[in-house]
Amino acid sequence: MVRVGVVGATGYAGAELVRILAGHPRVTLSTLVSRQYADVPFDAVYPALTGLVDTACTSLSVEAVCETADLIFLALPHKVPMSIVPELMRQGKRVIDLSADFRFRNAAAYEAFYQPHTAPELLARAVYGLSEINRDAICGADLIGNPGCYPTSILLPLVPLAREKLIQASGIVADSKSGVSGAGRTAAVASMYCEITESFKAYKVADHRHNPEIDEVLGRAFQQQVHLTFVPHLVPMSRGMLSTVYATLADGVDTRQVADCLAAQYDASPFVRLLPEDRLPETRFVRGTNYCDIAFRIDADNRRLILVSAIDNLVKGAAGQAVQNMNLMLGWEETLGLDGLPFPV
Amino acid sequence: MVRVGVVGATGYAGAELVRILAGHPRVTLSTLVSRQYADVPFDAVYPALTGLVDTACTSLSVEAVCETADLIFLALPHKVPMSIVPELMRQGKRVIDLSADFRFRNAAAYEAFYQPHTAPELLARAVYGLSEINRDAICGADLIGNPGCYPTSILLPLVPLAREKLIQASGIVADSKSGVSGAGRTAAVASMYCEITESFKAYKVADHRHNPEIDEVLGRAFQQQVHLTFVPHLVPMSRGMLSTVYATLADGVDTRQVADCLAAQYDASPFVRLLPEDRLPETRFVRGTNYCDIAFRIDADNRRLILVSAIDNLVKGAAGQAVQNMNLMLGWEETLGLDGLPFPV
Amino acid sequence: MVRVGVVGATGYAGAELVRILAGHPRVTLSTLVSRQYADVPFDAVYPALTGLVDTACTSLSVEAVCETADLIFLALPHKVPMSIVPELMRQGKRVIDLSADFRFRNAAAYEAFYQPHTAPELLARAVYGLSEINRDAICGADLIGNPGCYPTSILLPLVPLAREKLIQASGIVADSKSGVSGAGRTAAVASMYCEITESFKAYKVADHRHNPEIDEVLGRAFQQQVHLTFVPHLVPMSRGMLSTVYATLADGVDTRQVADCLAAQYDASPFVRLLPEDRLPETRFVRGTNYCDIAFRIDADNRRLILVSAIDNLVKGAAGQAVQNMNLMLGWEETLGLDGLPFPV
Amino acid sequence: MVRVGVVGATGYAGAELVRILAGHPRVTLSTLVSRQYADVPFDAVYPALTGLVDTACTSLSVEAVCETADLIFLALPHKVPMSIVPELMRQGKRVIDLSADFRFRNAAAYEAFYQPHTAPELLARAVYGLSEINRDAICGADLIGNPGCYPTSILLPLVPLAREKLIQASGIVADSKSGVSGAGRTAAVASMYCEITESFKAYKVADHRHNPEIDEVLGRAFQQQVHLTFVPHLVPMSRGMLSTVYATLADGVDTRQVADCLAAQYDASPFVRLLPEDRLPETRFVRGTNYCDIAFRIDADNRRLILVSAIDNLVKGAAGQAVQNMNLMLGWEETLGLDGLPFPV
Repeated sequence: MVRVGVVGATGYAGAELVRILAGHPRVTLSTLVSRQYADVPFDAVYPALTGLVDTACTSLSVEAVCETADLIFLALPHKVPMSIVPELMRQGKRVIDLSADFRFRNAAAYEAFYQPHTAPELLARAVYGLSEINRDAICGADLIGNPGCYPTSILLPLVPLAREKLIQASGIVADSKSGVSGAGRTAAVASMYCEITESFKAYKVADHRHNPEIDEVLGRAFQQQVHLTFVPHLVPMSRGMLSTVYATLADGVDTRQVADCLAAQYDASPFVRLLPEDRLPETRFVRGTNYCDIAFRIDADNRRLILVSAIDNLVKGAAGQAVQNMNLMLGWEETLGLDGLPFPV
Repeated sequence: MVRVGVVGATGYAGAELVRILAGHPRVTLSTLVSRQYADVPFDAVYPALTGLVDTACTSLSVEAVCETADLIFLALPHKVPMSIVPELMRQGKRVIDLSADFRFRNAAAYEAFYQPHTAPELLARAVYGLSEINRDAICGADLIGNPGCYPTSILLPLVPLAREKLIQASGIVADSKSGVSGAGRTAAVASMYCEITESFKAYKVADHRHNPEIDEVLGRAFQQQVHLTFVPHLVPMSRGMLSTVYATLADGVDTRQVADCLAAQYDASPFVRLLPEDRLPETRFVRGTNYCDIAFRIDADNRRLILVSAIDNLVKGAAGQAVQNMNLMLGWEETLGLDGLPFPV
Repeated sequence: MVRVGVVGATGYAGAELVRILAGHPRVTLSTLVSRQYADVPFDAVYPALTGLVDTACTSLSVEAVCETADLIFLALPHKVPMSIVPELMRQGKRVIDLSADFRFRNAAAYEAFYQPHTAPELLARAVYGLSEINRDAICGADLIGNPGCYPTSILLPLVPLAREKLIQASGIVADSKSGVSGAGRTAAVASMYCEITESFKAYKVADHRHNPEIDEVLGRAFQQQVHLTFVPHLVPMSRGMLSTVYATLADGVDTRQVADCLAAQYDASPFVRLLPEDRLPETRFVRGTNYCDIAFRIDADNRRLILVSAIDNLVKGAAGQAVQNMNLMLGWEETLGLDGLPFPV
Repeated sequence: MVRVGVVGATGYAGAELVRILAGHPRVTLSTLVSRQYADVPFDAVYPALTGLVDTACTSLSVEAVCETADLIFLALPHKVPMSIVPELMRQGKRVIDLSADFRFRNAAAYEAFYQPHTAPELLARAVYGLSEINRDAICGADLIGNPGCYPTSILLPLVPLAREKLIQASGIVADSKSGVSGAGRTAAVASMYCEITESFKAYKVADHRHNPEIDEVLGRAFQQQVHLTFVPHLVPMSRGMLSTVYATLADGVDTRQVADCLAAQYDASPFVRLLPEDRLPETRFVRGTNYCDIAFRIDADNRRLILVSAIDNLVKGAAGQAVQNMNLMLGWEETLGLDGLPFPV
């Protein structure tokens, strides 16, 4: 058994990590760090886990974490991880960071949207943890920058097509819709039930932090600079994310080529489901799972390709993909601990 | 008092018409027609209205409707209205039809997506009831083809910009999100609570009936043929519709020109609210009202204009706009019967 | 026009007062007090009201309130009102207080559950504002202790039966279910969307503050001391409250007597709807309205009467009943400003 | 591996059985019967299971079922099972029936609420599958009448107290609240999203079929005839059930005795969680699991015990308990296939 720790265990992504890891057959959850709930049993914060995970949370001590865990997940707000990770690496730990701190190769791109990077020397060592796209690099990595949920849902359908240049690099629009858990567990009026239920909105229109992450990865795939138009929306549901991505087909490309390209990329990937032609993704179909469901249609008159992808923002968009990456890093079956079946309803 | 009838009174749009008309100061609701609930008191079908609207529904008799009503709303499935309207017109009635039957000037466009048109001679006489855009024509009309909810939410922000050619006619994408009431009150597994709650999906991708209606009206505004890419989505909420529309700015156009153009079109329109720069629409802000809230942002790198509009699909998207059109036809204050304040929560 | 002020205008009950009063034909909303949003336009806090109520909120100055308003609604947390009301009364204002501070005749009952009462001399002057039960006293009052939402939903069905002794005073159980807006607009993890949606819970079981208020009023009706068992529950919905009340029929009492007693009490009350025998209340039927819908059934084997009542907790349970009381105090039609029709869906 | 079949596989309870059984380590799902979806792959009906359960459903042939399965779950409407079960028993199959057909020892009680029983000779052989209460009998059974969801949630907290006579047999009230999936997957207006969301109602007040099932089992526990007052309610959520049960303590009984009695009954039962004193059940804590969470409080003034229990109506209230019973019948670990961890949110 590998001893793992979760730092930031009581946020939504952290708690989802706890759920998955507590059921994982080859790890022991040795440490749960939560500043806010230090000394409180985890199941007092999340009573769903009463009797199942009753470990008390601890406050953050890098030393203590290093003593008790071999692999550490960080589910913390941006900026905190880069202050901890250098020491964890020195101690020979493997680290999977769910924040943006280690997602960029280019410190400048990070700094343009966040703050000065205090551990830029680690960026070259960190691997961007989009499992299906970077599987080989992840297998050999000891530091993972786990992708954001929006980038995951947008990049999985786009990257294979971009690499093959089946679509044009310019003019891509990603219209994404997220459940509320993406906003985290911090109490805020805007996240209250009465402000969310039975309503729908766009937010941070043409002003979202995930853009540089998407642009960087997509630019590498296209081998040219890319700037896609991205608008996030909020859906009255707790979990789930659906992205509708509009791209222009390259000259001469047809339906078959798109289908073949996606199949070639994903047929051996257990967590990407390319849906049969007559189905479209719904977020409930992937709820609680690590799947990314993908379908596409072509608006022939405009030669526009419409890709639709659905993930659970807390699983494939955060904790699940992090565990998938752990499995890859440790040479285990990719699906270990992630094979719970989706609920029919 | 003008005597009005609602044919198709027990569907969601019909019932919303009943609600609005029952509170309208200058009309008498004389006839409620419902095949399914003939002889059943309206408030037995919609108990919210217990003691408020207890008229019994009747089965459809054009003769009886003509005897009891001067103005008739039709909230029926497509195809039925065109079989009734000719006789209503012969009897000198005013008619507001909420189906697609009288929305097109061009019978061929209708027939391509629906069925043969049996009253094509009335299409030239019918006025497309997008109130703010066709106000003058509506004032003099006796037959209104009331717009669909998707077209309303997409056309209100686009038409003024198209007329002024501030945006390019090609490459427009409309990504729309609707509440479930848009699917009507017919029992279907896909509309059941358990299939909808906590989920989000796209549907009829690149295959939606509302496209020709939007394309025809937008084409007139641009004075050239247009085909926009349109994808509808379903939100787990009963009412509300939000459209995110992506268009490319014409050369040299800036934020100010967009704002001025929209203001010039809508400043005298009580039901279109151009939001202050720091606000974005949410469907709850217009819930139960006839408002269309509009905001926009510019993604400068791509010279892309992003318009966001929100309506209540049953009000401005159906029954409310129909009553607004009635008010215009009868020379009344546009807001009559439509001035209930939105709920704060 | 009577000038009215709302102190505590940006909480959910306060905002609902603003909505109703802004549409009321005989009042002017002269002052909106909100500590948290002083100097912020009301519609920036509640953008649904953009362009409709754009008055800036002010911080609390009793003097300023008295200068600008003749009748003042207080929608504040318990304890604050009793520090303000004495001065308002000295200034000759009429006051409707939505907190618990002036609901009790007996200061000791209040103090047992809240804190020392600093204006006990006003308790005898204050009238408990359960409109249908205390209509006459309310008409002559200048200080109203507006009832809580739970007591309103429980007392309206029970009081007439208690007065007539058609039910036994002992053994009454009230199992109440409330929407989330009852918890107010203060940011708290427990009120966040993800903690509420798709879940149901009981809370404060056998430990709820509303008990003494219910017991006092019910005891007066029975003319004997009463202690009912009360359990509140939280429903994943923003508005609405349904109470299921279990009481034992007095010897010999039958269905007819229960129906007659309720009818005698409420037939002239426009806001209490005694439902026909084949209908049961649903909270959506009263959503956004001042109605209290009531039905009952008898479990003959146990001689148990089961009463079911539904209100909108923010309207009949708070702001609507407060406006109804204002109408009564000022000698106006009881329904003024409260006659918006319920939505069919 | 034991070959199991599910007859009625595409209803909500049937599909939940499929989910659990598809992940069960010791069974093979050999047959899925669905009249409505004969020849349709299961994952076309429930696309969440795309690629996971793509077996085609078959129409019902008792013969074919017997050939392919050793143990058969019946998730069918009442009345159908009793026409099939006799033949299944003759063929030596084990049967777990989720309908009411085999829940009663007394045919008359069944017939009073359903219809004539066509296989009354099997009632004595059938075991009522309330796992924790009848564990021994279940272990030796070949025919199980799986309990209803309401009875499960009400009986688990009550039966131990009834057996020990810690509560009075008369005057018990069970106020239960269910999610919408309990109404099944048949399309009906009353189950549509728009009719359910943001509303709450009681239904079948003093007129519910589950009463005789509860009364019979509870009567056995008390060793005297019992008739409890039962009112079901509908919560706007898909899964989950919470029952609030009111009983009068027997003379001299105190909190400790209640706690000890429940602990003695359930301490060795992995699926009943007696919550710590400071927690109360919420349906989300048991969502997707086979747990029944129980807490209680005492309203001392009335000597009333208030029990609160929460289950997932589709799991412990149907499919999960059925699988738990299968595990017991086959001598396996009770938790096999039922150990997925609950989601934190």
